[in-house]
Amino acid sequence: MKSALHFLVAARQCEIGELEQLMRTSTLVNLLGRFIHALQKERGLSNIVLASAGARGSEARAAQIAECERIAREVRDGFDHLDTTAQRVGQGARLFSRIAYVLQGLDALPALRERITALAIGPEAATAAFMKLVVGLLAVVFEAADSATDPEISRLLVAMFNFMQGKELAGQERATGVAAFGTGASDPQRQQHWLHLIESQERCFQVFAEFAPAVPLALWHEAGTADATLAVIERLRRVGCTAPAGAPLDTELSETWFDAATRRMDAMQIVETQLATDLLQQCENKIADARTTLQAQQALLEALPPSPQAAGPDASAFFESAAPAEPPAASFGPHLDRSVLELVQDQSQRLQAMQGELETVRAALNERKTVERAKGLLMARRQLSEGDAHKLLRQTAMNQNRRLVDVAQAVLAMADLLPPAPPAEH
Amino acid sequence: MKSALHFLVAARQCEIGELEQLMRTSTLVNLLGRFIHALQKERGLSNIVLASAGARGSEARAAQIAECERIAREVRDGFDHLDTTAQRVGQGARLFSRIAYVLQGLDALPALRERITALAIGPEAATAAFMKLVVGLLAVVFEAADSATDPEISRLLVAMFNFMQGKELAGQERATGVAAFGTGASDPQRQQHWLHLIESQERCFQVFAEFAPAVPLALWHEAGTADATLAVIERLRRVGCTAPAGAPLDTELSETWFDAATRRMDAMQIVETQLATDLLQQCENKIADARTTLQAQQALLEALPPSPQAAGPDASAFFESAAPAEPPAASFGPHLDRSVLELVQDQSQRLQAMQGELETVRAALNERKTVERAKGLLMARRQLSEGDAHKLLRQTAMNQNRRLVDVAQAVLAMADLLPPAPPAEH
Repeated sequence: MKSALHFLVAARQCEIGELEQLMRTSTLVNLLGRFIHALQKERGLSNIVLASAGARGSEARAAQIAECERIAREVRDGFDHLDTTAQRVGQGARLFSRIAYVLQGLDALPALRERITALAIGPEAATAAFMKLVVGLLAVVFEAADSATDPEISRLLVAMFNFMQGKELAGQERATGVAAFGTGASDPQRQQHWLHLIESQERCFQVFAEFAPAVPLALWHEAGTADATLAVIERLRRVGCTAPAGAPLDTELSETWFDAATRRMDAMQIVETQLATDLLQQCENKIADARTTLQAQQALLEALPPSPQAAGPDASAFFESAAPAEPPAASFGPHLDRSVLELVQDQSQRLQAMQGELETVRAALNERKTVERAKGLLMARRQLSEGDAHKLLRQTAMNQNRRLVDVAQAVLAMADLLPPAPPAEH
Repeated sequence: MKSALHFLVAARQCEIGELEQLMRTSTLVNLLGRFIHALQKERGLSNIVLASAGARGSEARAAQIAECERIAREVRDGFDHLDTTAQRVGQGARLFSRIAYVLQGLDALPALRERITALAIGPEAATAAFMKLVVGLLAVVFEAADSATDPEISRLLVAMFNFMQGKELAGQERATGVAAFGTGASDPQRQQHWLHLIESQERCFQVFAEFAPAVPLALWHEAGTADATLAVIERLRRVGCTAPAGAPLDTELSETWFDAATRRMDAMQIVETQLATDLLQQCENKIADARTTLQAQQALLEALPPSPQAAGPDASAFFESAAPAEPPAASFGPHLDRSVLELVQDQSQRLQAMQGELETVRAALNERKTVERAKGLLMARRQLSEGDAHKLLRQTAMNQNRRLVDVAQAVLAMADLLPPAPPAEH
């Protein structure tokens, strides 16, 4: 029969297994960050090509497509190297399902690119298509952040996910600005969307700042003050967002805006890389620590006699309130029994504290989960696709000038007023 | 390279793996329920022996100890059959750590029993000792409920956990009533504790009623109306809880109370067994369903050519908003490409909806998590043991006549006012 110590050792082994899994996931997250950055650049260049009817940006776009393809191969490789053996990964179902979705997007990229080259698609539709793929990639990162069982690594993944999401919103803002200046006339609906993107971005970076460690945070503050890029961005935001409906906008500003927004995103990429480095370092440290403790516990396990009552005659201390007992006079070494009992209590207290921290960190992910729940409800009750449900929520938030999460909460609170779900199909 | 469909299949395999794991855990939960019931009975009989200074209950207690030992062997067997291979079980660390704790308690039981036989321990201390073990066993059940990734099974486990917890509180109430009538005099502090136990029980059974399926729920309502037991209990609760401080209580009522409370707990055990049956049935159904779907997906996978673009030429539909595309004229069968894309989207929507439901169900576990977080904070900041932290919270709740979770929330909100944590040790 297995003793308490056997299960303590098994618990440690689980922790190490989970940490190793987190390390692999973190490596993948890092790679996905690089891929998203490349796709964001390709999206920007595609817009320039489409807006200029092929006159500008084609060469840079071709080079960027090659770069994207190179990283896409790495991403596919990374997916291939994930351990998909059933039962090996907790919460694997959602992660793998997200990956299946992304792979569909990757497979569809060549056809999208052909349509862009043939100018057979508008810039807004092209932006929306790239967005769909990036959103799918971010969902993979979200699953990684949500599955972390170590609070410190979870903190880093929450910071990472929010930073990546903020960066993607910055990319969407870049496209919106290019379109606004490019058309040469102010449009209130686009202005509203633009302001919404600025606000959502800021919320993401706030969460990032709350959870990020010192070095990437310092890099981030530095990026905000070191050069004049941000001043240009703020000036053009003001020009673009405050012009009265129909007022002319200087089309020359389109390029100025694109360059400044691109410099800003490149600076973000540096912060993101630093965050990824910290993440991997943290995983390595944690694994090394856990292995050291495991070795000590295994040594103890081997020193104990193989009996069901392996915890020894002093186990009765279990029912004592506090007050340290006398060291037991056991045959297999002094303090050994006592130390098993203490080990169990220490580990139990440590996991308890970890769980508490983890819940606190994960609360930062709850906003997204609320939105997802509201989306799920709309999908089920109103027969909407995921995309349409999201659009409906976002549009309502914009129209009512409320945060997305507040609208989502309202939807959930009103659940009973929505039409009932149709019979479930299998 | 693996295609989208590969990952869809892997996601299904994960789901099946998780369901199988849930089935094993549910079997264990069922066994733990029977063991807790036996321990509760042993606790009650031990109290009778101690209260009568060995004059009554000794024979029944000896038989009950034999019964407990028999089930304890089954429990140890059940633990032994859990798959503790590292990485195989998500969130295994916490589960195994809880089990290690329980095993310590099992090892310490013989010594506790000797002290009871020798009348070397008071009834209250004996009750507290058994409680400690039961609380440890309930923590194993909680981890099982918290790790379920299927919302319907999670519902059942939440119902089960709350029912078991309510039943344990009923057991503690039985002991409190026996002590109250046994001493023959009313004590305001004991009355307060008694009322607290009634209130906490009712909250547990409310959650149970919210999540339980029809059959066990009907059994539960029936148990509340079918016989006169509940009327006896309510009358004795009134007598015991409203007597003025120091007023005499009829010691004869001790036995009447014990018998009625025992009948009530036996009725609860029947509900719990029904719930366990439903739980296992639900696991079996889900596994069978998932296997059928998996077979269909695997057949589809084998029909596809092994190319990285295995999702086929129609993958471009990925970027279409809605509007069904024409069936593709692919070489490997009509509708095949389209169906992979649809499969990915269906699965993604299904997991989305499941996740939403799961979050809703798990919210019912958050109350306990809030208490655990507050406990963790007190342990870290005030250097308390887990038991002392719990006692402090419970005592504060009783003194202020507030719910435990409200006190826990207040503690968390005041975190900044507590002394800072000492430097962490490894």
